[in-house]
Amino acid sequence: MSWNRFQTHNLVLPELDFALDYSRLHWPENFFADKQAAICQALSDMRALEAGAISNPDEKRMVGHYWLRAPELAPKPELSAEITACLEQIKNLAHRVHSGALAGAAGSFTDLLVIGIGGSALGPQFVSQALGGAGVSKMAVHFFDNTDPDGLDLVLGRLKGRLGRTLAVVISKSGGTPETRNGMLEAAAAWKAAGLSFAKHAIAVTGAASNLDKHAIAEGWLERFPMWDWVGGRTSELAAVGLLPAALEGLNISDMLAGAAAMDVATRVDDPRRNPAALLALAWYHATSGKGAKDMVILPYKDRLGLFSKYLQQLIMESLGKEFDLKGQVVNQGIAVYGNKGSTDQHAYVQQLREGVANFFATFIEVLEDRSGASIEVEPGTTSGDYLTGFLLGTRDALWEKGRESLTLTVRRADALTVGRLIALYERAVGLYASLVNINAYHQPGVEAGKKAAAGFLALNTKIQNHLNANVGQRFTVEELASRIGETSRSEIVYKLLEHLAANHGKRVHRNAGCGPFDATYGVR
Amino acid sequence: MSWNRFQTHNLVLPELDFALDYSRLHWPENFFADKQAAICQALSDMRALEAGAISNPDEKRMVGHYWLRAPELAPKPELSAEITACLEQIKNLAHRVHSGALAGAAGSFTDLLVIGIGGSALGPQFVSQALGGAGVSKMAVHFFDNTDPDGLDLVLGRLKGRLGRTLAVVISKSGGTPETRNGMLEAAAAWKAAGLSFAKHAIAVTGAASNLDKHAIAEGWLERFPMWDWVGGRTSELAAVGLLPAALEGLNISDMLAGAAAMDVATRVDDPRRNPAALLALAWYHATSGKGAKDMVILPYKDRLGLFSKYLQQLIMESLGKEFDLKGQVVNQGIAVYGNKGSTDQHAYVQQLREGVANFFATFIEVLEDRSGASIEVEPGTTSGDYLTGFLLGTRDALWEKGRESLTLTVRRADALTVGRLIALYERAVGLYASLVNINAYHQPGVEAGKKAAAGFLALNTKIQNHLNANVGQRFTVEELASRIGETSRSEIVYKLLEHLAANHGKRVHRNAGCGPFDATYGVR
Repeated sequence: MSWNRFQTHNLVLPELDFALDYSRLHWPENFFADKQAAICQALSDMRALEAGAISNPDEKRMVGHYWLRAPELAPKPELSAEITACLEQIKNLAHRVHSGALAGAAGSFTDLLVIGIGGSALGPQFVSQALGGAGVSKMAVHFFDNTDPDGLDLVLGRLKGRLGRTLAVVISKSGGTPETRNGMLEAAAAWKAAGLSFAKHAIAVTGAASNLDKHAIAEGWLERFPMWDWVGGRTSELAAVGLLPAALEGLNISDMLAGAAAMDVATRVDDPRRNPAALLALAWYHATSGKGAKDMVILPYKDRLGLFSKYLQQLIMESLGKEFDLKGQVVNQGIAVYGNKGSTDQHAYVQQLREGVANFFATFIEVLEDRSGASIEVEPGTTSGDYLTGFLLGTRDALWEKGRESLTLTVRRADALTVGRLIALYERAVGLYASLVNINAYHQPGVEAGKKAAAGFLALNTKIQNHLNANVGQRFTVEELASRIGETSRSEIVYKLLEHLAANHGKRVHRNAGCGPFDATYGVR
Repeated sequence: MSWNRFQTHNLVLPELDFALDYSRLHWPENFFADKQAAICQALSDMRALEAGAISNPDEKRMVGHYWLRAPELAPKPELSAEITACLEQIKNLAHRVHSGALAGAAGSFTDLLVIGIGGSALGPQFVSQALGGAGVSKMAVHFFDNTDPDGLDLVLGRLKGRLGRTLAVVISKSGGTPETRNGMLEAAAAWKAAGLSFAKHAIAVTGAASNLDKHAIAEGWLERFPMWDWVGGRTSELAAVGLLPAALEGLNISDMLAGAAAMDVATRVDDPRRNPAALLALAWYHATSGKGAKDMVILPYKDRLGLFSKYLQQLIMESLGKEFDLKGQVVNQGIAVYGNKGSTDQHAYVQQLREGVANFFATFIEVLEDRSGASIEVEPGTTSGDYLTGFLLGTRDALWEKGRESLTLTVRRADALTVGRLIALYERAVGLYASLVNINAYHQPGVEAGKKAAAGFLALNTKIQNHLNANVGQRFTVEELASRIGETSRSEIVYKLLEHLAANHGKRVHRNAGCGPFDATYGVR
């Protein structure tokens, strides 16, 4: 890369310890001029959103995650007060837990079990990995982020004998997310089996008057924290959803908020070439032809940031992966996101990135400071960190040599300020990009279809069990049973559910093999 | 899905507790007939490979990972004997460690530190997560899988005070992989700082007469295990690379091998519709138009299998992501792979999968058995596991409704037999697919380019430091320094390296801000 192009295609923000190098993209000559009006409109849409416009039109909701780190910007004083009060409540609770003033049945809390999924797990997981560690973390953090019974058992296995010193935080806006509700019920059963009261070890983070809220009040849980309808799940890391687990772990939530607030200021700038979020959105537009034509590969060269790509997968894919634009036209938008960490991934898929199908652009994340202490030399004058830097620069050039485009973000260290900045940067870049392609970034209509289909299949599962239990001693083939219960059009699903029931002894459904794989008979003895 | 199509597009192998449902792909009418000759050739290529042909022509190596689980099939008796002896050595060592006969300076081994990267880390990480757990794992397993100094410190932080009971396994075929060598040196420094001998806690897994092998002999390490040139890194999970860490953790390596051996038998079948590996390869060919036109999304509905997609990322992308075919024509092949686990990911990116850019096909992995113990009911007649099954089936149908294709693998439980089967299945599917598109699946020429560029930058890094150290007290701008050392064409890299050096105090390079971001001066005081 020429020294001149590098300098002219590089936004350095020293006050944020941040740089965005966009020199390794094949920008068309007039790209910025051509896109000036569109990005100007996107920034204007964003200003309206920040001022409290209904920016999620189908759900008729304000989109207020930017107020979380600048409560004074909220459009109503009540909202500002709620944000501030919630933050105080979080700090207070963390203080009481750390001091032992609030303790479990067996003593002060040593472990934290976060029960949540999607936006209620990915942010907390990312932040815990990024900022926690021996000597820093005041509690060991565990997650129930699925409805996999064996997965729940694995976590409970790690907590064995310590439930009396484990604090559970259940996070669900509606209280109706089945995975989270199931996790809560399984946790409550485990506490009960240990002779302990779950309520005396549980905290809720939920919408006011949700089912979870009512349940927590009725059972007398330790405390409740709010989830506001103007904060979406995937942008809730800097609400109680993310800040409460982080504060309990002992991480610096004030710095996370300060970092995000400062990045918000830097990303409100009108000139897109001085605004890192606008630059990111424009780079994505260029690299993917404004229609997701290429995947976004996220490569932080820092172990702590290993979950950032998974966090971004949700933020970006759920926000941008949309069937319709705001005019109702079918657009099938989105950008696929994946990644892990460098230089590790050089030994996994960089072979394909350099030589294979050219269906991606990369985002390198460089962290200048190698470690907090001193380094040994692995060769005269060379440290492990020099290698890490060398690999980042070398891989980037090896890709560029083959015409593969990349962006490079540079930060000083992977600390709470940086984490706050990165979250704020990508939240805004997603919003700006959504404006560029004219979609609603703040809803997720496609998630409902799978949930509805699942609900239908669960009802069918019950119907099957009811029929078998009402006919104890009888055995049915799939076709016979489907016919009996009036579900011949769903014979395949009847088969799938029967196979699952028969594999789980508690269901008491026995399977007798038939001649072929689909001729088995099933029944309750 | 119609019951008839489901049955006719479904390969069920009861003896392997395995099924592959390929009904939810839009197979063209004559696809199997059209591809008969090609898949027949691919199976024939595979037979030659298994018989010891030089199937990695540029590296002039045999490709023998299938012999690892059926040593009698190796083309020479010496190889069979080596495989068997190595397995005995692994079991012996694990027994001595578990019994305490082999112990660390502070007592019997409680922790295992695996030092390796790429194929020497991804397999062991996947298997440890899939099969380990409280009550099963006899040692806690940790990884150095990068050259990130802070990442190494995080792991060492977890091992603090326990190095005298930690067994280190260093895995590198050549002994020259810098990340692994750096990890070894950093580990040795940590043991030394704790007043302990690293050699007395270290085991090498490496090629005969490699640098690592010589080093281990010279220092008197506890033991050495072989890495053969006929086993590639990404297919080495069932060699000492994967089996040794698994055996030390206390996992059932005999079952892993038995599962792989049985799947090998099932995937040697001539009829592609009775051969799950052939079916996978054909499905990939259909779904990606034989040129990586779509991404492969891996969705196991089981927490234990959460790292399978990362394991497959390497196996598939490094094997298939190739610039040239075997005739030397530019083809830029490959299939991008990503994924995590369901139903968790329904709350992350399934929104985009259903509604957004249609640039993928999904592979669902269904595990029939929910957990080893009994389940509570979260609603009358319904368990958490019923929900998991309902979500898998519901999401699959929601995708299919929108024309998104998928495969479904069904297994009984996520145990050692299944893990062995899955590894063997995908190893062979990759090989067959490579034949279908006529590429060498067993080399990775693209990885070298980044390494070479990195080596050049590390030399430049040394040159910069030497110049600054030879001119203590002087300060240089980037341009001045680049000119002084004759590197003006690489001014950008000089800048990047100077910024990195200045951020790390041990380097004693001071940065004085200039007027603009690129006008700073650098020097050693």
